Amino acid sequence: MQRENLSMLCDFYELTMSNGYFLNGFYKRNTYFDVFFRTVPDGGGFAIAAGLEQIVHYIEQLHFEEEDIEYLRSKKLFDEKFLTYLREFKFTGDIYAVPEGTPVFPNEPILTVRAPAIEAQLIETFVLLAINHQSLIATKAKRIVRAAQGRVVLEFGSRRAQGADGAVIGARAAYIGGCAGTACTLTDELYGVPAGGTMAHSWVQMFDSEYEAFKTYCELYPDNTTLLVDTYNTLKSGVPNAIRAFKEILLPKGITNFAIRLDSGDIAYLSRQARNMLDEAGLSCCKITASNALDEHLIRDLLMQGACIDTFGVGERLITARSAPVFGGVYKLVAIEAPDGTIVPKIKVSENTSKITNPHFKKLYRFFDNESGKALADELCIYDEVIDPDTPHTIFDPNATWKTKTLTNFTAKELQVPIFKNGKRVYELPSIHDIQAYCTEQVGLLWDEVQRFENPHTYYVDLSRRLWDIKRLLLQDCKS
Amino acid sequence: MQRENLSMLCDFYELTMSNGYFLNGFYKRNTYFDVFFRTVPDGGGFAIAAGLEQIVHYIEQLHFEEEDIEYLRSKKLFDEKFLTYLREFKFTGDIYAVPEGTPVFPNEPILTVRAPAIEAQLIETFVLLAINHQSLIATKAKRIVRAAQGRVVLEFGSRRAQGADGAVIGARAAYIGGCAGTACTLTDELYGVPAGGTMAHSWVQMFDSEYEAFKTYCELYPDNTTLLVDTYNTLKSGVPNAIRAFKEILLPKGITNFAIRLDSGDIAYLSRQARNMLDEAGLSCCKITASNALDEHLIRDLLMQGACIDTFGVGERLITARSAPVFGGVYKLVAIEAPDGTIVPKIKVSENTSKITNPHFKKLYRFFDNESGKALADELCIYDEVIDPDTPHTIFDPNATWKTKTLTNFTAKELQVPIFKNGKRVYELPSIHDIQAYCTEQVGLLWDEVQRFENPHTYYVDLSRRLWDIKRLLLQDCKS
Repeated sequence: MQRENLSMLCDFYELTMSNGYFLNGFYKRNTYFDVFFRTVPDGGGFAIAAGLEQIVHYIEQLHFEEEDIEYLRSKKLFDEKFLTYLREFKFTGDIYAVPEGTPVFPNEPILTVRAPAIEAQLIETFVLLAINHQSLIATKAKRIVRAAQGRVVLEFGSRRAQGADGAVIGARAAYIGGCAGTACTLTDELYGVPAGGTMAHSWVQMFDSEYEAFKTYCELYPDNTTLLVDTYNTLKSGVPNAIRAFKEILLPKGITNFAIRLDSGDIAYLSRQARNMLDEAGLSCCKITASNALDEHLIRDLLMQGACIDTFGVGERLITARSAPVFGGVYKLVAIEAPDGTIVPKIKVSENTSKITNPHFKKLYRFFDNESGKALADELCIYDEVIDPDTPHTIFDPNATWKTKTLTNFTAKELQVPIFKNGKRVYELPSIHDIQAYCTEQVGLLWDEVQRFENPHTYYVDLSRRLWDIKRLLLQDCKS
Repeated sequence: MQRENLSMLCDFYELTMSNGYFLNGFYKRNTYFDVFFRTVPDGGGFAIAAGLEQIVHYIEQLHFEEEDIEYLRSKKLFDEKFLTYLREFKFTGDIYAVPEGTPVFPNEPILTVRAPAIEAQLIETFVLLAINHQSLIATKAKRIVRAAQGRVVLEFGSRRAQGADGAVIGARAAYIGGCAGTACTLTDELYGVPAGGTMAHSWVQMFDSEYEAFKTYCELYPDNTTLLVDTYNTLKSGVPNAIRAFKEILLPKGITNFAIRLDSGDIAYLSRQARNMLDEAGLSCCKITASNALDEHLIRDLLMQGACIDTFGVGERLITARSAPVFGGVYKLVAIEAPDGTIVPKIKVSENTSKITNPHFKKLYRFFDNESGKALADELCIYDEVIDPDTPHTIFDPNATWKTKTLTNFTAKELQVPIFKNGKRVYELPSIHDIQAYCTEQVGLLWDEVQRFENPHTYYVDLSRRLWDIKRLLLQDCKS
């Protein structure tokens, strides 16, 4: 796509609604929108929030070019005064969000916008797109990395990604989720995610013999050699030729940092056989990389079967989150400011009860047990509620209000932090490496039961008593 | 992503291999690579080729900036002479491809590159990414559009797309596959795909009453009104308020071109009830739009149950091709030119027999029956083979060579057309509207049996006798 400014990446209805808000004066009213999701992909117990950095850049350069205005005028739907307004348009509101890499749960606000109606409405699509895409991939990456149990996982999926951003920014999100690197060069250049790679089958085919291809590669990249051994026959030709090349070229130089890569056939069987052959040849230093349609389930199965793999190269099933390729984040109006500044909570009811929203401008707390350090529960409160950690705090399940739990000896942490205030950024973007480390640390604070791949324990996301009362009243109002 | 030139969107190994080809002189040798895929997503009978326009733009601006060279130098892996070479790098080869919108089948070359080794290698990732992404979405869109049986299908998925290109270019691909329009404004501005939209729940919530929200919208957009009726209660509140607004605002102006939109609840039931209410109110002119987790299966089921829907708005299940979100196109070396210009066919064998490639520089023919006009079979031939339509032509199944079929009274059409010759574009890009029309026409030439959603008839993709003999010989060579 030939466009750096993505202000026009919005749903057309955001523009028609904004034109309406402009004409009837609503555009001066502050509105509050929450981004939240309803279910964790793959039936997992938590998701990883990501995408905030791209939202920050988007908000900072939000504006309409003359050609955009011209295009809109050609639609013959928009008032000239509105088009004039768009010419000077910029974001003047507030944004709060959980930092990238934070484990998050259904129904809690990952990001909250407080802005005049048009500004809040026009950013809907991009804000959702950025969070949905990167949270999807970071969440999937975290599953795959956990399945690898400490082994290295590399992101190899650019060619199967859904578009250029799918590849480049997807690899960024995969790094947040714990991948050690990517094959995507541009992700390294732009975001500092370490890029690396081995060789394609075409390299081997270009030479008159497999051995010559391996030998040449070892001579070129002695410090960083991974030989792809399945172009002809893995065990009969590939591994023996690799052993010969390592022994003839690398070992004499004292280099022991090399590997082979398996990309087809039965990886469990081939990796065990290859491991034996390498060990028998005195190359126990040689690592084994595997690729070919891997995901968390196959990795877990391979390791259970004793596969001898040190590094997993994961492609299409990570970069598209193939088993559950949609992160269903939504953007819902939760409050409007009256002209006198009063915040009027709003609710969206639905024939599907799971689609009913949590109204009001809110705060999101996470409670940590002071003894174990583990996360106990999250609570959604009204924006002005303060939780006193020195008082026992009773939480209850909003879907089963008789289920209560009283917390003592806990720390309460506000998860959302201010990102923009009055259109100015007030948040310093952390480095991608810090985000990855923070994600690893925070996931480590979840109980194992919440981290289970299948049928995990449902982490508590409760409403404060005040919020619950307001929600109930609004629901009753709608019914009547 | 802040980048217009996507030359660095390549797998890192393409650069390390290229550095090797440069140093050992291979870079002057012409190589031939095919793009093909192995299975149709969703178990369908055919795919729709798309993505060529983005490849053309990419190839035309392929070059490395000083900052790219600097980044590569920092890796301490690349020879200075290679980096100097990259500074002047451009594409000088040939590209052949099937036009966008063409129905294509497993194992046939959608695109063929003939270029010096480095050039052919460095474009691998982007070429695959563009074809894989857009063919995926165009193929899915065609399934959904066919399920709608002539009703309008609109693409509504930007917010759930995998990145900005996933949204913007995905909507382009959905249009190729037959969608009538998109919600994505930028896709309209950049590619001319008609953008439209209705209203969000937030519009309705902004007003003191649902009726006031509807009335205001009708007054603003009298010629193009679709009212979202499920914010509070579809049948008790939404539809009655919509009927009142249509009757009070639009009918008196003689306007009858309006609609309601259902976005939750049971669409089959609600649409029938709403249809009755509208008809009883004398508004049989009012159309009904439905959205909410739709795909080809749900649309087929809804229509079987007598749902009264005129327009389908399809979101996440289209823009991510949710049920099968990967198009597995691969890029494989099929031949190398010897210094004397002889084309030396190359094969890639594999422990997985389905991964064995079809060697050589090839032509792709499609045979049409002169009587019915229908497509009969495709055949892969050597580049210099010519098929005489006046002679009976016998084709055979490469996986079951005893199965033969003799064609008479047929037309043979070469599917690949030249796109670049010696680095110069020789192909005029068709308009997006022409691509959509061509796609509709060409899919219409496939037998119904090939178009079935589940367990379709396998369309014949055969090898010419000469190609088959060459492949067999190469396989024997590898085995020995």
